[in-house]
Order: sequence, then structure tokens, then C-alpha cells
Amino acid sequence: MRVLVIGANGQIGQMVVSRLKEKGHEPVAMLRKEEQAQAFEDDGIDTVIADLEEDFSHAFEDVNGVIFTAGSGASTGGDKTILIDQEGAIEAIDLAKSHELDHFVMVSGLGVENPRGVEGEIRPYLHAKHRADEHLIDSGVPYTILRPGLLKNGEGKGTVTFYEYKGETKSGEIIREDVADVLVKIIGYPPEDKIYYVVKGETSISQIL
Amino acid sequence: MRVLVIGANGQIGQMVVSRLKEKGHEPVAMLRKEEQAQAFEDDGIDTVIADLEEDFSHAFEDVNGVIFTAGSGASTGGDKTILIDQEGAIEAIDLAKSHELDHFVMVSGLGVENPRGVEGEIRPYLHAKHRADEHLIDSGVPYTILRPGLLKNGEGKGTVTFYEYKGETKSGEIIREDVADVLVKIIGYPPEDKIYYVVKGETSISQIL
Repeated sequence: MRVLVIGANGQIGQMVVSRLKEKGHEPVAMLRKEEQAQAFEDDGIDTVIADLEEDFSHAFEDVNGVIFTAGSGASTGGDKTILIDQEGAIEAIDLAKSHELDHFVMVSGLGVENPRGVEGEIRPYLHAKHRADEHLIDSGVPYTILRPGLLKNGEGKGTVTFYEYKGETKSGEIIREDVADVLVKIIGYPPEDKIYYVVKGETSISQIL
Repeated sequence: MRVLVIGANGQIGQMVVSRLKEKGHEPVAMLRKEEQAQAFEDDGIDTVIADLEEDFSHAFEDVNGVIFTAGSGASTGGDKTILIDQEGAIEAIDLAKSHELDHFVMVSGLGVENPRGVEGEIRPYLHAKHRADEHLIDSGVPYTILRPGLLKNGEGKGTVTFYEYKGETKSGEIIREDVADVLVKIIGYPPEDKIYYVVKGETSISQIL
């Protein structure tokens, strides 16, 4: 599958791109800046320069699926949360629909299911991600939403706790490498329009789905 | 009609509340702080203390309609834009639906129809208002959306240019007092689930609708 990776220069994005290639997919790394492209192209990975705040429809030509792993980051403030995490995602979903893509995989997060139940500075971000997820669910685009626990660095374990959302969630952590492996596993399966959660655990990633 | 005015302590909100009472409606001023209530009660206006960032469902008991004229203001940043202008509005719409209210009047703005067509710092705000308007349109709650031009202070003229949105808009200014009079006129009519724009003009407000 030819997969547009939105947020390819992020920590998880970089892992996803290289793993997609290893597994025989054709990743296309969507990058905001021209100078980010060389490192990907040196690894034989196709790139497209596009900005979520501008018209990025050209990035959707000639791909079959999308993995959305972009994020504005914790330090950029609420305006960027709206422009990137919410509206960038919603526009990507609309473009996936108009281009009739086969699968949209959204990287979401714990707490996104009910932002009003969460106190603290994270709440605006959770609201924005919630709107994006709701838009995807209502869009008609075949999708998988993945809600990982608190992201940690470190070597992937190859095992996780992976479960479909049925109204309750487990809190927990997850290593970014394992999230990347789960995303690559998901994109290889036909979408069933489901929401999954993933935290640390003992189930081999090769056994999920 | 017994009308909950959300944002009653704002400039337009205060005007709306007093005009509703003059016209024989029963306004209920929704206020964030206890100390804001006395001035309204001195004028014989009912009040309810409620915060858009918390549970404010109690404000919806025993009212028939809502005028939403709350706003986080230009200086509070993007997080408040999400929490108040977008999510406060969306929660109010959901409460109007669960309480089966007869009319939800939303104060929106020029540019909200297409935030991606607008450059500059206002864009996150327009996106947030767009999401709120879309939620209202899709909610099944009987509604009127009013999109006024650039708001100005000064004495109301009693005349406006008022038109239904058909894919194009006129830019322009409008005096807050005239917006308040238009809102009171709107709440007195059965909702037709339409979007109207209002800027300065020559049509008597008594002649619109």
C-alpha cells in the first residue's frame, strides 16, 4: 500500500516511515520543510512538501492510505492546537474522502474520548483531538483510530495491551517504537472503523488484529 | 419566551437582556461570577451562575430558548478559544437538544463560513466558531445563526442590511446596539434553521423576517 505519513518528521513518524518500507509498503513522507527531505530520500523514501496550515491537497495524489501522526507539540499554544491538531486533521480527512482513500489511520490519545472529564492544561488539546476523531468517524472514510497511552522513549518491547474501546479505558504508558509497530500492523489490515487503545502489555504485536 | 442569554455580561449580552425584558420576554442572564448578578437583579432580571468550562446544565432548566453571545475575547489566547468559543458553544447546543429547547440563536461572525480563506491571527477563532456553527446545524436543534460584521460601539441606527447566506457575503461594520435589536427580533420568530448576515444598512429592523 502507498501510504502518506502526515507528521513524518516527528518521532513516531520517522519510525513509521522506515518500518513501512521494511514491510514492503510504499511510504510517502509528508514534510513541512524542503530541508527535511534529504534524510528521507537518502533512505530511498518518497517525500512531499506540504503544510497542514496551507493547501496540502497535492499530497493526496497517488496514495491509498494515510497515517496521521502530526502534532503541534506541547509548547506552541492553543492557536496551533486548533490549526494543526484539529483543523489540519479535519482537512486531511476531507481530502482522504474526496480522493476516496482506502484507510485513514489516526493517532489519537487517552482522554480524547471525554475531554470534559479531564482537568488541567491538556484539556484544550484533548478537545481538539476529540473533534478530529469525531469528524473521521462521521466522514464515511474507512478508518482506524489508535489511542496510545503516555508516550515514552526507549527500545520497543514488541508486546502491548491492545483493545477495542467499549466505553472504558486503561491508563498507562507505551513506548513510541511499539506504537510505530502497531501503526504499521494496522495499515496492513482492512479497516473496520474501530477505535483501539494501546498501552504496555504482554501481547505480541504480531498477534493483534 | 423564557430565554437563557449566555454571555449576558458582555457588551451585546447586556443590551440583549434589557431589550428582551422591554419586549415582554423573560430573559435569564447566565453569569460566570456571583458578583455580576446584583446589577441584573436590580433591574428585575433573573440570573443563573454557570461557567461554560464546568457543568452548566442547571442553566437549561425551565427555559425555552437560548441566545449564545459569549466569547473568550481577543486577548485570552487559543486555549480559551477552544474551551469557550468552541466547546462551550457545542456543550450548550447539546444541552439545548437534551432539554428540547425551541430555538437556539447563535452569534457567529463574518469569515466563519470559510476560515481557510482568511489569513492572520483571527483564523483559529474563525475555525472554532465554524465548528460550533456546524455542530448546531447538524444537531437537530431549531436554530438561527447570525453573522454580524465588524462590531462597533455607538448609538444604534435601527436600520441594517440583513440577508440570508447563499454562498456569498458582504463585508462591513455593524453597531452592537443594532445587533442586539436584531437578536431580540430573531428570538421572537419561529426558527427556520437559517444563517443570516447583518451589516450596516437602510432596512428597518422592524421590517426584517
